[in-house]
Amino acid sequence: MIDLEQVEGGFREMWRELLPVGRHEPTGGYRRHAWTSADGECRAWFEEQARKRGLSYEVDRNGNQWAWSGDPMAGNAIVTGSHLDSVPDGGAYDGPLGVVSAFAALDALQERGATGGRPLAIVNFGDEEGARFGVACTGSRLMTGALEPGHARSLQDAAGVTLGAAMERAGQDPDAIGRDDERLARIDAYVELHVEQGRNLGEAPVGVASAIWPHGRWRFDFHGQANHAGTTRLEDRRDPMLAYAATVLNARERARLAGALATFGKVSVEPNGTNAIASRVTAWLDSRAADAATLDMLVKEIIHESGAEVTRESYTPVVEFDGPLRDRLAARLGGVPVLPTGAGHDAGILASAVPTAMLFVRNPTGVSHSPAEHAEEADCLAGVAALATVLEDLL
Amino acid sequence: MIDLEQVEGGFREMWRELLPVGRHEPTGGYRRHAWTSADGECRAWFEEQARKRGLSYEVDRNGNQWAWSGDPMAGNAIVTGSHLDSVPDGGAYDGPLGVVSAFAALDALQERGATGGRPLAIVNFGDEEGARFGVACTGSRLMTGALEPGHARSLQDAAGVTLGAAMERAGQDPDAIGRDDERLARIDAYVELHVEQGRNLGEAPVGVASAIWPHGRWRFDFHGQANHAGTTRLEDRRDPMLAYAATVLNARERARLAGALATFGKVSVEPNGTNAIASRVTAWLDSRAADAATLDMLVKEIIHESGAEVTRESYTPVVEFDGPLRDRLAARLGGVPVLPTGAGHDAGILASAVPTAMLFVRNPTGVSHSPAEHAEEADCLAGVAALATVLEDLL
Repeated sequence: MIDLEQVEGGFREMWRELLPVGRHEPTGGYRRHAWTSADGECRAWFEEQARKRGLSYEVDRNGNQWAWSGDPMAGNAIVTGSHLDSVPDGGAYDGPLGVVSAFAALDALQERGATGGRPLAIVNFGDEEGARFGVACTGSRLMTGALEPGHARSLQDAAGVTLGAAMERAGQDPDAIGRDDERLARIDAYVELHVEQGRNLGEAPVGVASAIWPHGRWRFDFHGQANHAGTTRLEDRRDPMLAYAATVLNARERARLAGALATFGKVSVEPNGTNAIASRVTAWLDSRAADAATLDMLVKEIIHESGAEVTRESYTPVVEFDGPLRDRLAARLGGVPVLPTGAGHDAGILASAVPTAMLFVRNPTGVSHSPAEHAEEADCLAGVAALATVLEDLL
Repeated sequence: MIDLEQVEGGFREMWRELLPVGRHEPTGGYRRHAWTSADGECRAWFEEQARKRGLSYEVDRNGNQWAWSGDPMAGNAIVTGSHLDSVPDGGAYDGPLGVVSAFAALDALQERGATGGRPLAIVNFGDEEGARFGVACTGSRLMTGALEPGHARSLQDAAGVTLGAAMERAGQDPDAIGRDDERLARIDAYVELHVEQGRNLGEAPVGVASAIWPHGRWRFDFHGQANHAGTTRLEDRRDPMLAYAATVLNARERARLAGALATFGKVSVEPNGTNAIASRVTAWLDSRAADAATLDMLVKEIIHESGAEVTRESYTPVVEFDGPLRDRLAARLGGVPVLPTGAGHDAGILASAVPTAMLFVRNPTGVSHSPAEHAEEADCLAGVAALATVLEDLL
C-alpha cells in the first residue's frame, strides 16, 4: 500500500506554485495557451521540478517536456504525465492534475525505493487544448505522425502568428518537428491521469478509462429570407431562427434518448440585426456517443429533422484503450469503475502507437473547461496513490 | 379621374435612373447609407428632378431636401415625399417609391392644371433608415425636435466617423441642425406614400394607414455554465442555448395567438466555441402589436416564461395618424383598405407636429429590407394615381 503521508506536502506545494500561473483574475480562469508567456512559466516550473529531483530533463523535437528517472535510452520505459496548457478561462485541474500527480507518485515510489526496474518518464505534452492554433493534442499528434509538420507550422492564431513562428520565439526549432518513432520505440506504456470531466464516477474517487467515444463536429446552415421584423406577417416569414431553435431542442431530446451527447455551442447569424428576420443561421453541432453506430444514427436523425444544409467538419473514430493494460490497472486498483469518456486526450493519440491507459479522478460537480472546475483534495491524493500503485506494478 | 398616360413614361424613366445608384452587385441589394457617396448620388438625382421641373430647390438645416411648386413661404403647404436611403442590402422600393411617386403625381397634377391653389412640396428626408449611425428617421426627428442636436452630432458609424463630421464632409453645416418650428408652421399636411412591408393589402393595390403599432426592443440574457461539450452529462448541464431555443419558439407561438409580431433576429453567444456549452446567450426580441396593452401582455408572457434577465432597450408608443385626414383620404379613394403598420416612418415622426397620413402600395411577396423586395408596376402606378388624387383634393 502506498503511503501518501510523505508526499502530501509536496503535492500541496506543487499545486500552490502552479495556481497563480496564467490565471486571469477577472474570471478566475486560466489562459495558459501554447507558447505564450503563461505557458512558458508552466514549462519553467516543470523543468524546475525535474531539476530538484535530479531527473534528466529534455525537450523533444516537438516541444514536449520530459523528466527521466533512469536511463532515457534504455528502452522499455513507463511514461506518465499530461499537459499544462488550458482552454480560454479553463480550470486549474484539466491537465496540471496529471503532471503534478506524476511528480507526487514518483516521490512516493522513491520513498519506497520502488524505482529502478525500468526507466520512468514524466511528460508534459505541448498544446493539448489547441486553444491558440485550433488543433488539439498538437505535441502528441506531431510525435505519432498524426499531424503533418508543414501543416502544423502554418497553423495561425487569431493574431495571424503561425505555430512555427511562435515555437521559434519560444526557442524551439520548428523545422525539427515531426514523427518521432525512435522515442516511441523506447516507451512500453503510457498512463495518463486526468480529472474526470463529467460526474460519471459517482462517489468513486478514481476510475480507469475504457475508451474515448467517437465524436464529430457538423456545421448546420439554416437558410431563410431576410425581411422586416416589424411588418412581415408571421405566416409570410421564412425565419431560419425557428428551425434552428427547434433543432437545438430536438438534438437534446434525441441525444437523451440515445444515451449520447449533442451540443450547439456556437452560432452565427446573418444579418444579425435586431429588427431583421435572419436570412441565415449557421450553428455547429458537437456530438458524441459510446459507439459509431449510435453516433451516426443520432446525427442522421438530427440532420434529417432540421431541414438544414449540413457539412461534417471533423470526425474522430472511437479509441479503445489497450485491453490488457486497462484490465491490469483495474485489477491492481481493485473494484474501481471502468468507464469511457467523451473528451479527447493525448492518451487517445498515443494509443495508436504504444499501449496506453488513463486514470480519472472524481469531478464532484462535473464542471470542466470553466473557472469553476474543481476536484476535492482527498480525491486528488487518492489519484496519486492509484497512479503510484499502477506505476510500481508496471515498473 | 387622374389620367396616368401622360406620366407613365416619366415614372419609368425616374425609376430607371435610380435603379443602379448604390446597388451592391454581389447581393443585388442597395447600400445607400446616409451621407455616403451613394446617398450623394441619390440627392443629386433629387435636385436634378426639381431643377428640370422648374421647382424651387432647397436643403433645410437638417439635411432634408425640398422641391417646391408655389411659394415656399406662403404657408398652408401640402407636403409629400419619403426617403432615398436604404438599409444594408435593402430593396429598391422602401423609400424611393414615395419620392418617385411624388414627382410623378406632381407631373399628373400639372398636366391637369391642378396645382396653384396652395404650395406643394416634395421632400426627401435624410437618413430615415439609420443604417449608418443607428438612429432611424434622423432628418425628421431633428426637424421636429425629437432628436437632440448635440446627441445627433456625436452619433458614430462603424468606422468611428461622427454624424457631424459626415454631414460636414457632405457640405452640410452640423452646427445648424435642430428643431425647425418655422418650417413646420408652414406645413398644413404631410402625406407619405410607401411600399407596404407585409402582405396586408391582399389584392388591393393601395391602402391608407391608420396607425403605426407600438413597438420595442428587449435584450434577453440567458445565463448558464460554461462546460465541456464532450464530457458533461446532459442532466448536469446548465445550457442557456436550450432556454434560448425554447423562448424563440414560445415567442413565435405567443405572438401568433396575440395577433402580434415577435422576432429574435440578433444573437450573441459566450464563449461561442464548438466544443463548449455556452455560459451565456444574449438575444434581442423585437416585438410589435396593434395596441400597447397587447404588446405589454405579450412581452410580459415571453419574459416570464424565458427565465432570462431582460432589459428593455427601446420603446416607441403607438402613432395614430390624423383621423380627419385619414378619413378624407379613404373617402376620396373609395373603399381602399385602412390598415396599421408595424414599421416606423418619417410620417410617424411628423405626426407629432402636423396632420399626417400615409398611403401604402401593395407588396405581393411581403418581402422588405431585402434585395428581393418587389412591387408590381401596375400597383405602383395605381399608387401614383391615388397620391395625385388625394393631393389634388388637399390642394
